Amino acid sequence: MTETPHERRTRACQERLRDGDAAAVVLSPGANLQYLTGIAESPSERHFLCVVPREGGPVFLVPELSGTQVREQTWVAHVRTWADDDDPTAALRETVADCGLGSGRVFLDDTMPARFCLDVQRAFGGERGRQRPFGLASEVLGPLRARKDDAELVALRRAGEIADEVALSLRRDAADLVGRSEASLAREIEHRLAAAGGDGVSFEPIVAAGPNGAKPHHGHGERTIEPGDPVVVDFGTWVDGYASDTTRTIVFAGDPSEEFERVHAVVAAAQAAGVDAVEPGVEARAVDRAVREVVEEAGYGDAFVHRTGHGVGLEIHEEPYIATDSETVLEPGMVFSVEPGVYLDGAFGVRIEDLVVVTDDGCERLNDSPREWRVDAA
Amino acid sequence: MTETPHERRTRACQERLRDGDAAAVVLSPGANLQYLTGIAESPSERHFLCVVPREGGPVFLVPELSGTQVREQTWVAHVRTWADDDDPTAALRETVADCGLGSGRVFLDDTMPARFCLDVQRAFGGERGRQRPFGLASEVLGPLRARKDDAELVALRRAGEIADEVALSLRRDAADLVGRSEASLAREIEHRLAAAGGDGVSFEPIVAAGPNGAKPHHGHGERTIEPGDPVVVDFGTWVDGYASDTTRTIVFAGDPSEEFERVHAVVAAAQAAGVDAVEPGVEARAVDRAVREVVEEAGYGDAFVHRTGHGVGLEIHEEPYIATDSETVLEPGMVFSVEPGVYLDGAFGVRIEDLVVVTDDGCERLNDSPREWRVDAA
Repeated sequence: MTETPHERRTRACQERLRDGDAAAVVLSPGANLQYLTGIAESPSERHFLCVVPREGGPVFLVPELSGTQVREQTWVAHVRTWADDDDPTAALRETVADCGLGSGRVFLDDTMPARFCLDVQRAFGGERGRQRPFGLASEVLGPLRARKDDAELVALRRAGEIADEVALSLRRDAADLVGRSEASLAREIEHRLAAAGGDGVSFEPIVAAGPNGAKPHHGHGERTIEPGDPVVVDFGTWVDGYASDTTRTIVFAGDPSEEFERVHAVVAAAQAAGVDAVEPGVEARAVDRAVREVVEEAGYGDAFVHRTGHGVGLEIHEEPYIATDSETVLEPGMVFSVEPGVYLDGAFGVRIEDLVVVTDDGCERLNDSPREWRVDAA
Repeated sequence: MTETPHERRTRACQERLRDGDAAAVVLSPGANLQYLTGIAESPSERHFLCVVPREGGPVFLVPELSGTQVREQTWVAHVRTWADDDDPTAALRETVADCGLGSGRVFLDDTMPARFCLDVQRAFGGERGRQRPFGLASEVLGPLRARKDDAELVALRRAGEIADEVALSLRRDAADLVGRSEASLAREIEHRLAAAGGDGVSFEPIVAAGPNGAKPHHGHGERTIEPGDPVVVDFGTWVDGYASDTTRTIVFAGDPSEEFERVHAVVAAAQAAGVDAVEPGVEARAVDRAVREVVEEAGYGDAFVHRTGHGVGLEIHEEPYIATDSETVLEPGMVFSVEPGVYLDGAFGVRIEDLVVVTDDGCERLNDSPREWRVDAA
């Protein structure tokens, strides 16, 4: 029987546990659980845990109501349930005993709420409880999740294509969209992403027109998109749990200022330099440096107020981060954004963002819609 | 200077800490933090904590970026910040030392993610770290939050009025709404709640038409509302952080089955009996019993598959729960739903829900739109 991606990832997780002489990872609903089991569950008030021991199969501990669904949707064979009036911590203690997890570090899912953390800590306490060291699941799973496998890349490529389709459609329909409010365009983008096959938005779309573009944290408001306005549009969607994220700065109609044209050219050049710098073996900060140098040489260094990029996968912000001090060595399969921005207070902002995946000898772009500010550029 | 509601609640929390010989409550973004400080922050990857020691003022520990906002929006005088490249756990350790919190139980916010729990546990560890007992903030704050104060009741009443306005408007416009899909009516309800002054929906509205009404967990789908369909509509909104939640079962046009008429009368009588049973000093299960007896006597006991109610406040589900085994003694200020339902598989469902607040000698309804299934009932 062929090993599924989820099984392969779980095996890699268990190898890391054994290498570190650790006992187990305990997951709750979220990206880590989805990564190893495919279960995309929403956090709730009920215990919903998955114990991944260093040896043997993982064990799901879920309410009886969820038992059938988990059995149907995951490769994990051992699903332990309890009725609404039973004590879930008893099942947890038995699992710890059954798996022979008497000692060694236990890694808690980074997002696990305290109401479950305390129970898990107590269950893994046992007689030597006070000595049990705890860590975070990201210590084990972070490096694995940073390198995407083929199944993940299929989803990420498709998510990128959908974002590109929508970016293209905004250019095509620019004449109709000018005059709309930022908020209305954000809803339009959301609608188009869904129509193109995306599964919701991976974050609330940013539509920042004119001077609003100079505020990197502006979402969208009631400002109307006027002719000549540079508009920063930053959005993405989900495909099979994986995100896309792309940014273009577009002038929907009319002519922008000369300074905007100059700055846009600088940001585009910086973005290209960043993508060119991506290859396995280099540190993430080298990519940040390549981008920042172009912006600094043009005299806009102070106006580039954020890091160059962030990893994207099951979460919209994850490892690896591409910043001035990022010593992460890039490896094939890593997916992250390259997104320089220049923000001129009271005037405009420019940001251009593509996701890239590191390949054996460079990188592949996951976004390739036109980067020009002119909507009629080819 | 008059004490604000937030200060009064914090003082009550500290009294409970001292009574229990405990050290502190540590909060993260969520309902408990909002309850004591008014800060309605979204959970993020950055440390954002509030230490409430048994004596003296609370201390906020937040990123520098959030410092100004927290200082402006809360009564808490001590706001400690750190820059993005500083270590937040150092500030946390210093706070523990400054507050003289060397021993005693520490209560972690129930929703605090493990990534912060472990840091807080380490910071409170100190030399005697392994002996420090931890609990959950709800153990301290749950009983306080269950009894709403005047400021909370103002918000809850207004949220209820807005829900009632929308329920009334659905009856008024019934002739126009028949033929719409469940999903479309759900969006319409969302729109009307906002137009009436609500701040978003307190949960995704339920619109369950015809046989879909027999599935208590049905949200809404593409089914069209047909003449003669009983439609379960269950929705609410937020006002100043407090939720409303009301359910009516309405026939938008045409005539339903005789059995539906009979069942609707039973559920309405059960709901009235439940509200009548609410008074301070009785156990919550007595309310459940009063409701269930009416349904059982009518022969539909097996079709009433859920508890009678749940508390509502800063969260849409909170203490007190009104169930068969709830021994909570009702006290003035407690707010909860009374919502019997009967679900006849393949046919229809009926649920009627109002929120009530316990008064000194009975209760006050927070919902009072018509409970009849006929839209033209007065």
